[in-house]
Formats: sequence, structure tokens, C-alpha cells
Amino acid sequence: MAPGDEGYPYSRRVAGLKSSAIREILSVVNRPDVISFAGGLPAPELFPTELLGSLARDLFQSRDAPQALQYGETEGHPALRERILARAPFPAGTYAGDGVLVTQGSQQGLDLVAKLFVDPGDEVLVETPAYVGALQAFRFFGAKVTFLPCDGEGLLPDALAAALSRRPKLAYLTPTFQNPSGLCYTERRRAEVRAALERSGTLLVEDDPYRALWYDTPSPRPIVAGLDPARALYMGSFSKTAVPGLRIGFLLGPPELVRRCVLAKQATDLHTNTLGQHLLLRLLDHPAFDEHVATLRRVYGARRDALDGALRARLAGELAWRRPGGGMFLWARLAGGGDAAELLARALEEGLAFVPGGEFHAEGEGRDTLRLNFSHAHEAKLAEGVERLARAFRRWRGA
Amino acid sequence: MAPGDEGYPYSRRVAGLKSSAIREILSVVNRPDVISFAGGLPAPELFPTELLGSLARDLFQSRDAPQALQYGETEGHPALRERILARAPFPAGTYAGDGVLVTQGSQQGLDLVAKLFVDPGDEVLVETPAYVGALQAFRFFGAKVTFLPCDGEGLLPDALAAALSRRPKLAYLTPTFQNPSGLCYTERRRAEVRAALERSGTLLVEDDPYRALWYDTPSPRPIVAGLDPARALYMGSFSKTAVPGLRIGFLLGPPELVRRCVLAKQATDLHTNTLGQHLLLRLLDHPAFDEHVATLRRVYGARRDALDGALRARLAGELAWRRPGGGMFLWARLAGGGDAAELLARALEEGLAFVPGGEFHAEGEGRDTLRLNFSHAHEAKLAEGVERLARAFRRWRGA
Repeated sequence: MAPGDEGYPYSRRVAGLKSSAIREILSVVNRPDVISFAGGLPAPELFPTELLGSLARDLFQSRDAPQALQYGETEGHPALRERILARAPFPAGTYAGDGVLVTQGSQQGLDLVAKLFVDPGDEVLVETPAYVGALQAFRFFGAKVTFLPCDGEGLLPDALAAALSRRPKLAYLTPTFQNPSGLCYTERRRAEVRAALERSGTLLVEDDPYRALWYDTPSPRPIVAGLDPARALYMGSFSKTAVPGLRIGFLLGPPELVRRCVLAKQATDLHTNTLGQHLLLRLLDHPAFDEHVATLRRVYGARRDALDGALRARLAGELAWRRPGGGMFLWARLAGGGDAAELLARALEEGLAFVPGGEFHAEGEGRDTLRLNFSHAHEAKLAEGVERLARAFRRWRGA
Repeated sequence: MAPGDEGYPYSRRVAGLKSSAIREILSVVNRPDVISFAGGLPAPELFPTELLGSLARDLFQSRDAPQALQYGETEGHPALRERILARAPFPAGTYAGDGVLVTQGSQQGLDLVAKLFVDPGDEVLVETPAYVGALQAFRFFGAKVTFLPCDGEGLLPDALAAALSRRPKLAYLTPTFQNPSGLCYTERRRAEVRAALERSGTLLVEDDPYRALWYDTPSPRPIVAGLDPARALYMGSFSKTAVPGLRIGFLLGPPELVRRCVLAKQATDLHTNTLGQHLLLRLLDHPAFDEHVATLRRVYGARRDALDGALRARLAGELAWRRPGGGMFLWARLAGGGDAAELLARALEEGLAFVPGGEFHAEGEGRDTLRLNFSHAHEAKLAEGVERLARAFRRWRGA
């Protein structure tokens, strides 16, 4: 056997395994002179580091310590599962205690869903654009991904209804401040999408990690709320509100489905790290936590305004965008057309990184789009980044 | 769509998804009156809890804190990867820096290997008996698992050579104090197995979580040591030497293969929890860590002796076993034959749990075997457990 890649007897699914271009860009932008709008990182200076340190000290001195270091249940720490249910945006009783699974970040929810549902060639519906981590998970298992069109209110109901008539395996939607588009479906559109899903037999997978990060008005209730709970899986994350490094997300669903997810998780990693679960539980139970999330809204909202304002001042003719009402990203289109990957090459020379939007689309589409993160850089950096972007535009248009 | 299981459009691989009987037994034995030889838990009273608490305090007060709470690299924390390489039981230079992946427990290594290599119907070779977590991972992806015979020195080389001639996808071996058998291959047998593997093109996956837990003589070097590194993957864990709750294991292999594992891990959970990686790094770097592992050897060795001695005194005629030289399990056979699951029913009535061995075998085989854990209960409990087991035998034989 040759040591080269082609010498190994890979499974057929390896053909569907691609590195995310985002990861490639991120590995470039660790240079200190580069301002990065490319990542999707929360601001580390806002982490509740001191509070977590104090909670960790309490935990290690408590009689919970051995349990927080031991093997745990695949379903997750029981008290944390209760707290997740209590905080979930659904009326009490919508989901049962055995309808909650703690996952290793919400990315693991995608892996488990793909494992349980996707055979090669199965159709999965997503929005245009779509979250790249979901595309990776579904495509790795051979899914045929269909991108459905959206407007400023959300997914177009007629396109959804037409696609649902083919009886796809899953519809995967991120209706609330999506990564990358920042789109938040209106209440009316949520109702229309809900109605189309109710008429079909297709399972909805709703991914909702940005719910708490709204800057103008509170997030509308999930599409899942109001659907038959037997027809939906709902995924959330504590990476945006607590910290990402604990790698804790969750999945809610009908008990029969969650039980299958638990079995799949047994074979995947046995259980989510127990220390992180115990720490997160203490954080959620601390009175300062909700105030911390309110601070995130205030600071990220100001950063959103700073980016939006600088773009208006410097690049209103070059870019078209809607100011996002929440989340971490501003999504823009090249007003004069072109390939954002070419613009990125110029921008990197000016010391600015962003993510060209092609990767969030069907092959070959969306080349004139780009994603700008505003949660990680503070306001002065955002303004300076827009200056650099403006210089990159001038050089690119001049070339 | 009906809410019942059969109403969901599962993937074909869900048919291969079974709950481990061990998990079912474990859920029964939480009664405080039951002595459990059933689990595979390390002893929580030996956890380096105080040291970890002090390291956590240092970490949260250090400038590493934000990084330890932020998203991390899929490959793992660079300094931890270095330390893993430095501690691995291979000559320096055997594996390169890009040949190390930090996994979410070594179970995740199995999931990634199964994803990368196993298509439905692919043959995977394992020992008789075999680790049940590996069976779950491989079978979930549709592997045809072939169980090969072992004697007291290890896997039988002729049986291996015959099976390798069919060019199976993988050979998965746990040659050092296996869960469940406790078997540790002799040096001679390792050399014979290595030679058979060298002659074939089959990739070896060596799982080695119990290496540090030897009680008589140090563990022989891995089979992978001495093989062409391009033909092998090697997996280890910190769950037995540090604590399981951090969920940190690792995988070593040729860079091309590890790169594919990294891509698969991106789609699986993005990365292993960063807080746990930072804590583990500090633990490995602390001078008390190796002393802690020496204590585990001493205490677990004494427990192994206590179980072995009590069985000799009370059940020498009923059970046949070899005293394991390491690990966490004593593996026994019913000397007079019969079904260990029936014995378990009597034992549970007497307040003792253990794991019947059938699950570690091909369907329908190994019913006369059982696995007894000795790492979790202290010596007096082990002696009392054996008394209960002796009573269970009397009732079972009398029935």
C-alpha cells in the first residue's frame, strides 16, 4: 500500500469530504496585522471569564466534583437537561424530559441527524445561502442538498411547498439571524412555512443558535413552536451566550427520535464532557447570566451599528445589504457584480479578511456575495476594516 | 407521519444501531444496595480532584483563559498535541506534528475511523472477545465484523493471516489489557501479528487506553511500534489516567490519514472542548501527574489481587480465569458451562451486578463468559461482591 491518499481504502463517503474554505481563510488571518471580518468568533473580552473561574472554584470544592470528572450519561447531565428545557422557547410541556439531548456543540446535532436520516442520494432542503457546517455534515453522508430561495422575509413558501411535494428526507432551516445571511424570518413568513411543513410529511430540523442575540426587537418564536412536536427537531447552542470552548449544545425532539440520537451518540463519543456540563449548569443558574447576555446584545448591537454605519459612509455604492437585526454577521452583495474571492485577494493585501459567499451556495453560485463578521472586532477596528475594504475595492475595480 | 419509530424516514444505517446491554445493566445498578462489577469506571476517590481544582484556578487567572474558552482548532490545542507526541510510546520522529489529532475521548477516534473507511458490507477484523464500543461504531456504518480467535498470548497469527488474505478494510486490535478480556499479548505474539500485518496491505487500528495501568511488569510496546507508520492508526485516552469527564483522547497516524480525520471531525463537532484540553495540558505538565499514575497502578493492582484472591477462595470450581496483568477487568468463563445472563439474574437478586460476555462476541456466542470490573469498588466491596456471586451460583446451580 502506498502512503499517498489514494493508497488507502477509504469509504465512498470520503469523496464528499471537503475542507471548508472558511477554515483555510482563518488559518491565513492569524497575522496580527490583519483585521478579520472572516471568523464567526464571539468576543473573548466579553466572556464571563471571572464568573466561570469562580464557579469552577466552587465546583471543585463541592461534593459534585467527582461526578463532574467521571463518565456521564449519554443523554447529558440530568439537571442541565432540565434547565435546557426550562429555558427553551416553547410552552412548558411541549417537550418531555426524555426529549432533550446535550450535544457536543450544535454541530454534533447535525452529525447525529445526518447519521440517522441521510443515505446517499437523499434530498435535504436548505435555504439560500445555508450554514456551511450543516452542508458539510449532510454532504458527508451523501445528501443531495437543494437550495431554496429566500427574500427579505424568509424562505419563499411556494418554493418550499414545491420541494416538499418531492418528499425530501429533511428540511433544515435557520430562520433566526442565520449564519451567514443574518436573515430573520418575519412572523407572517414563519406561519406560511409552518403551514407548508404541516401539509407535508417532512421533518423540520430548526437550528437556532443566535436566538438570544437580537439587537432591535426580541426574536420571533421558532417555527417549531406551533408545529406538531413529533415532526421537528430543534437545536440550540451555548457557544454564543456562554462560551464556545465548553462545546455544549442541545437537541430537542420527540422522545422516539431523541432515543435514536442517544444511541448514535453512544457510538460517537459516549457523552458530552461532564466538567463543561457542570460548569454551564452553574453559570445558567447564576443571577448574573441573563445580565451577561443583555451585555452581549448591547455591545454586539453597537458593533453591528458601527459596521453598518461605516459601510454606508464608505461603500454604499459598491455593496448592497440589509442591516441584520441580530446574530453575528452582515451579508452583502457586490452591487456591480463580480467575484468576491477576487476582492478578497485584494483585501488581504490591504490587511483585511472576510469570507466570500460562494461556499454557502450551490456549486458555482453566489460568487458576488460576502459575509462580514461584526462580533469579534471592536468598533474602531470595524471602522478601520471598512477603510481597508474600500481601498481593496478601489484596487480591484481599477485592475 | 405517525409519531412512532417506524413513521420516521431513517437512514439504512439505523438498522445497525443497538443499545449496548451494558448500558442497560448500568441503569439498573444505581441502587445503593447493589455492588457493581458491571461498569468500567475509574475510582472517583483516586481522581486528582484537588490538583485539577488548583490548575483550573491558575488557568482562569492566567492570560490563557480567553483562549481556553474560545473556539479552537479542529486538530486540537497545539501544545497538548506536542505533549501527546512526547508521551506516546514510540521513538521520537515516528509520528510528525501533523500526525496527531485530539479526539473527544477515544470513542470519537472509532467514529472517525468508521466514517472514513467503512462502507456497508466492508469487513473489519476484531479479536474474540472485542471492545463493545468499537463494535457499535463499526456496525453502525454497516461493517461485517469478523471475530478472530485468541489464546493466552494474544490473537492467533494463523487465523489472522487467513483473514488478511481476504483483504479486509481494517484490523482493529486492543493488544494491551483489553476491555473486556484483560488479555495482554506477549512480545513474541506481537512480533508474529506485526509480521502478518506487514505482509498484507491491511491497515491496523490499535486501541491502547490501558497502557499505563500495568500491575506486574510494564506494558510491552505497541504492535504499531515496528510497523510501517503509514499502515497504522494508534488511539489512546486520558480517561483512565487523568479523568474521563474531560473526554479527551487522541489518534496518531500518517499525516494524510490524520488530515482526513480532521476534515471528518470538522463536520462532526468542530473541535474537542478547549477548556478540558487546557486543563489536561497543565495536568500532564505537573510533576505530580506521573506519581498519580503510579498510585493508580498500586491501588488498582491491589484491587485486582483482592478480586482474584476472593475468587480463588470461593469460586475456583465454578469459574475459570487468568489473572489480568493490567487494565480494569477480570474475564472469566463458567467452568461448568451455561448462560451468564441467567447467572446475572440471580446475582442481581443477591445485590451484585456484572456484565455477561455475550455482547463482546459474534451473535449467539460467548454466553458462558462474564466480565468483572475491579477498578471501581474498594477491596472490602470486592470481597463482599464475590460472596454474593457465590450465593448466586448456589441458587443458580440449585434451580
